[in-house]
Amino acid sequence: MKVIKTIEELRPIIKAWRKEGQSVGLVPTMGYLHEGHKSLIVKAAAENDRVVVSDFVNPTQFGVNEDLASYPRDIARDARVCEEAGADLIFHPEPEEMYFRDSCTFVNMGKLTEGLCGKTRPTHFQGVCTVVCKLFHIVAPDKAYFGQKDAQQLAVIRRMVRDLNFDIEIVGCPIVREEDGLAMSSRNTYLDDAERAAALILHKSLMLGKEMIGQGEHDAAKIKEAIMQNIKSEPLARIDYVEIVNPDTMENVDTVEGAALIAMAVYIGKTRLIDNIVIVNDKNKCRLL
Amino acid sequence: MKVIKTIEELRPIIKAWRKEGQSVGLVPTMGYLHEGHKSLIVKAAAENDRVVVSDFVNPTQFGVNEDLASYPRDIARDARVCEEAGADLIFHPEPEEMYFRDSCTFVNMGKLTEGLCGKTRPTHFQGVCTVVCKLFHIVAPDKAYFGQKDAQQLAVIRRMVRDLNFDIEIVGCPIVREEDGLAMSSRNTYLDDAERAAALILHKSLMLGKEMIGQGEHDAAKIKEAIMQNIKSEPLARIDYVEIVNPDTMENVDTVEGAALIAMAVYIGKTRLIDNIVIVNDKNKCRLL
Repeated sequence: MKVIKTIEELRPIIKAWRKEGQSVGLVPTMGYLHEGHKSLIVKAAAENDRVVVSDFVNPTQFGVNEDLASYPRDIARDARVCEEAGADLIFHPEPEEMYFRDSCTFVNMGKLTEGLCGKTRPTHFQGVCTVVCKLFHIVAPDKAYFGQKDAQQLAVIRRMVRDLNFDIEIVGCPIVREEDGLAMSSRNTYLDDAERAAALILHKSLMLGKEMIGQGEHDAAKIKEAIMQNIKSEPLARIDYVEIVNPDTMENVDTVEGAALIAMAVYIGKTRLIDNIVIVNDKNKCRLL
Repeated sequence: MKVIKTIEELRPIIKAWRKEGQSVGLVPTMGYLHEGHKSLIVKAAAENDRVVVSDFVNPTQFGVNEDLASYPRDIARDARVCEEAGADLIFHPEPEEMYFRDSCTFVNMGKLTEGLCGKTRPTHFQGVCTVVCKLFHIVAPDKAYFGQKDAQQLAVIRRMVRDLNFDIEIVGCPIVREEDGLAMSSRNTYLDDAERAAALILHKSLMLGKEMIGQGEHDAAKIKEAIMQNIKSEPLARIDYVEIVNPDTMENVDTVEGAALIAMAVYIGKTRLIDNIVIVNDKNKCRLL
């Protein structure tokens, strides 16, 4: 697997592909790739002539007290995953390659970034939007692939692409889960055995929400309250947020009609995990999207 | 001259050019084109196979009490200027084509935007950066042309392109002046005869600054003071700012060494005009850039 470290090396490779009329898919990641990432790369490889995986732990999307230093990294393993999944190259820059010391330009978004993860992590989405904007300019892909696991990020990127007229199609891909329901995450590696067992409470309480809606409960406040009570039954869990929102605008909904996103962030010990489901509730039929 | 109003119509035209291997130059303007704009288009036509002129009075770069409503517009005349200068098409969207009602993504810049025009017009450069970013995504040019007249804007765009990794070359072009020295500006049309005469004070006081530096004065504070006194001798003039700064970073300089930008904004009656010169002061030789 070719691992490219600089923008200067990457651009001519992509331009040569373009010149041959080949389409390019981009899978932006922070590395430590798991089955969720792999599903994005496989999809990108199926839909494009060429696939670039960016593998960059972006410092600007971490807050000062967050886990930037401890975030897991393993480029050798990532290269094997990319190889298997059908990527053409990994773009793996150092932070100094991506940011000048006097960088002062940022992409900011209002509204969609104010609640959910944006409330707890106030500079996070500025970091995400700015680095994704940069990666889009560096790689110039036709399509870019993001996981539904980061539901707010996916909505934010879609909005950025719309508002700033990027000529790029954003493809959202379903959450990949462990057999017992835990959503795949690079941060799962932080969990000890007891925490790993406790972490199931996220998916279980999302399923509780789905069940309530399936049984005819449409009052978002009641569903949210039941989910929160369920999470609180797990001693190792501490709720950051549970919200029921419109999946495109991230605005709270009072009543679950049409599509609704149930999203949560929960600390299991010191590890902050996120998970979500999108419920489509049409004409008394309730299904997961 | 082809005038295109929508992004949907524009994109396939540019993609067809690209497919034939043609290079594309973009000249972003707010219309009401004068000889300064024309010089940008002529240069773009000399350096690219195809030239797009965007002609859009961008509402988001005007403050609430500024001249958005009265800003002069004449698309028929603009089309003639573009024809003569060698453009291939004009992109002339309505504001609703450029902005969704719920647009919430912005490109922001610190540092370079804080002084000079950014001080008096605090939301101006957010508007400029955001619309230029959008135009860059819509047109995807190889090169984009900006006048040195808006010196801070030129520095801001260069920085945005560097920080966000746009693969676009920014070409700065010299100020075009009337025979008597007044810098060409669409806003000159606001001036009555007395104001038109008074407006010469901008260029005259820049020339005074140049003369002082040529005579060996390197103290920025003294040069600035002499320029301000000179402007104050004109009863119709009211100073917004006079600054001597590094032309790349827009930081104030104490001593004029190497390249320095002398920039000013001056109200002549109700009309706010800007002008500037870049002085290069190397080894006792002083010249205009």
